[in-house]
Amino acid sequence: MGNLDIEGIINALRTITSGHQGPVSLHEPTLRGNEWAYVKDCLDSTWVSYVGQYVDRFESMLAEFTGVKKAVAVVNGTTALHIALKLAGVEPGDEVFVPALTFVATANAVAYCGAVPHFVDSEERTLGLDPHKLRDYLKSIARIDVGGCTNKFSGRRIKAVIPMHAFGHPVDLDSLAEVCKEYKIEMIEDAAESLGSYYKGKHTGNWGKLSVLSFNGNKTITTGGGGAIMTNDEHLGKMAKHLTSTAKIPHRWEYRHDYIGYNYRLPNINAAVGCAQMEQLPEFLVRKRHLAERYCDTFKKIQGVRFFKEPSFASSNYWLNVLLLDEASYKKRDEVLEATNDQGFKTRPAWDLLNTLPMFQDCSAMDLSCAENLVKRIVNIPSSSFLGKANAQT
Amino acid sequence: MGNLDIEGIINALRTITSGHQGPVSLHEPTLRGNEWAYVKDCLDSTWVSYVGQYVDRFESMLAEFTGVKKAVAVVNGTTALHIALKLAGVEPGDEVFVPALTFVATANAVAYCGAVPHFVDSEERTLGLDPHKLRDYLKSIARIDVGGCTNKFSGRRIKAVIPMHAFGHPVDLDSLAEVCKEYKIEMIEDAAESLGSYYKGKHTGNWGKLSVLSFNGNKTITTGGGGAIMTNDEHLGKMAKHLTSTAKIPHRWEYRHDYIGYNYRLPNINAAVGCAQMEQLPEFLVRKRHLAERYCDTFKKIQGVRFFKEPSFASSNYWLNVLLLDEASYKKRDEVLEATNDQGFKTRPAWDLLNTLPMFQDCSAMDLSCAENLVKRIVNIPSSSFLGKANAQT
Repeated sequence: MGNLDIEGIINALRTITSGHQGPVSLHEPTLRGNEWAYVKDCLDSTWVSYVGQYVDRFESMLAEFTGVKKAVAVVNGTTALHIALKLAGVEPGDEVFVPALTFVATANAVAYCGAVPHFVDSEERTLGLDPHKLRDYLKSIARIDVGGCTNKFSGRRIKAVIPMHAFGHPVDLDSLAEVCKEYKIEMIEDAAESLGSYYKGKHTGNWGKLSVLSFNGNKTITTGGGGAIMTNDEHLGKMAKHLTSTAKIPHRWEYRHDYIGYNYRLPNINAAVGCAQMEQLPEFLVRKRHLAERYCDTFKKIQGVRFFKEPSFASSNYWLNVLLLDEASYKKRDEVLEATNDQGFKTRPAWDLLNTLPMFQDCSAMDLSCAENLVKRIVNIPSSSFLGKANAQT
Repeated sequence: MGNLDIEGIINALRTITSGHQGPVSLHEPTLRGNEWAYVKDCLDSTWVSYVGQYVDRFESMLAEFTGVKKAVAVVNGTTALHIALKLAGVEPGDEVFVPALTFVATANAVAYCGAVPHFVDSEERTLGLDPHKLRDYLKSIARIDVGGCTNKFSGRRIKAVIPMHAFGHPVDLDSLAEVCKEYKIEMIEDAAESLGSYYKGKHTGNWGKLSVLSFNGNKTITTGGGGAIMTNDEHLGKMAKHLTSTAKIPHRWEYRHDYIGYNYRLPNINAAVGCAQMEQLPEFLVRKRHLAERYCDTFKKIQGVRFFKEPSFASSNYWLNVLLLDEASYKKRDEVLEATNDQGFKTRPAWDLLNTLPMFQDCSAMDLSCAENLVKRIVNIPSSSFLGKANAQT
């Protein structure tokens, strides 16, 4: 076993979060902008539900910030993924490539469509899906014809791939887009964690046919619970709105619906919080970057561990900061988790690899050696934006 | 065509809603209790998302009010129905009896399970499912064996029936429960519209294996968007909570899940609104009853129309008040809708019968003559609780 300086890790966390009283959470929202004013406006006007100005405004702000043409606000990132997959044409019996190293929602959404996740490996450079390894894998399992891509072994159509920008760090999107083009596979970006993260200068969410965001309470911005479906395709954008709002045909009084629709609409009161949060997003990102820089400097001096930095082609939001234990020290991961949590610093490991969960253990998977290695070594550390400083205050 | 006094209807609406400025909506929330205090507490504490005291409190208040042991708060009534059906054992390929005369969500939730709606008729006494007609129908189509009930013609298992308490008026639950017992069919109550409605002195939602509520912005109480799964079965209650909150196994830091779960949790900020609304529910119900009584008296004098009163075995919340046009006048329904809406009184017809919608038109259906008759004659009229008076003010 290598030398891992657990005491050093705790001291580093203490130094960087000093001035913040009590237990330090992993990611806590900051609600110091217009949240009150906008929510009170909802309550005073009684427009708390699905009619009201904040949903439209929130969707416009998201589209403007990310540069994706259309954003449709929904109750969370999971439901956003469900509809994005449906609109990308994922059908019962299809296979969809999903990184083994992601939050369970990525694979659950595939299952909601009656399709089957097929797990793929990650790369240490991004912590996300490895496009080169995927291409090599496809060479050995895929058959391409007019109908698209078929898995020669399962006989199923491989309809889509869902890169997930883990902890905010963008996947190598250009390389993945090439693979998708070559093999006629649709890309759906799971950008749940990457609001404010850019790949080669362009915001994540612009590469997929559709993409999704999340505004869960632990995300860079929050709406309590919330998410969005994003797309540059106007028709898909309209369909996303229609399907997530019960597929009702507009009429002055009639209640008539033309598809099996979903009730995934974000209430106006949650969108009101979202508008106020979006106003503060640029500052949150500056603070989070400042925090990441401080972590990076500080952990350079700690033995047995490395602070994970954004890939060279990316500017990340550093949603959840990542410590990577050295190969030699991975057996001490739970010791680090226990010691830090005991000291009031909320830390956590990555998600258990999805192919190890009972409901997905029989799904196909490629060699997952990198993901298996990473999951043993990743420790997320406190990352709330208020732990960093805004430019003006440095 | 019979004589229908449209001018009289408009005058009646004007008289009863006088003192309420501007257009009169169909059902608007009243948010004059502790909504702001509780929401502000969420914002101040930053507990806006899935951790926080209001969800637990809201669930307890619902259970206490309805007398159903366990309530699980979710994002809306549609998602509540989805999980209730899953937990009742509805599986892909099953048939589920659904009234043709209901909101589309009742049938959509069946489709989410991969099951097929089978449409059944309503009765004029309750506007909801007709248990006696269903029994007669089952005599001709059902085969009962150890596996339960099978449709002899389609070969599919008939797993469940979803009575929906239309506009707040309880279905004849005892009679339906007998049919369910005889034919080994599970009952799931769609009580989305009937919070505050009682059948033989007991709150709706207590007859089904599971039942659901809705707190959409147009309901008797609102959480912006929201719903609940209710059950008297402790195990099902626990599973409802587990499946709607991503099926995560509790652990200090691990992220491990044991089922294909859903992200249907109600955020704390919405539950905060719900708690304040529940505190006011008794007053809302008094006001709504007062409004219904005034409508009842007033419409007695108007030719061609009848105010729909609660069934003899029920005490209804009168969620949406119903005018029934006389048989002879049904062709003037759209004229009534147009004239009233033009005058600023928001009115609407019942939902288009679900068997007429493109995605359900090929589903099985029994004779639907009563529902077909009702849908031509129902007109919902303004029903917000503030249009009625609280006891203290009469």
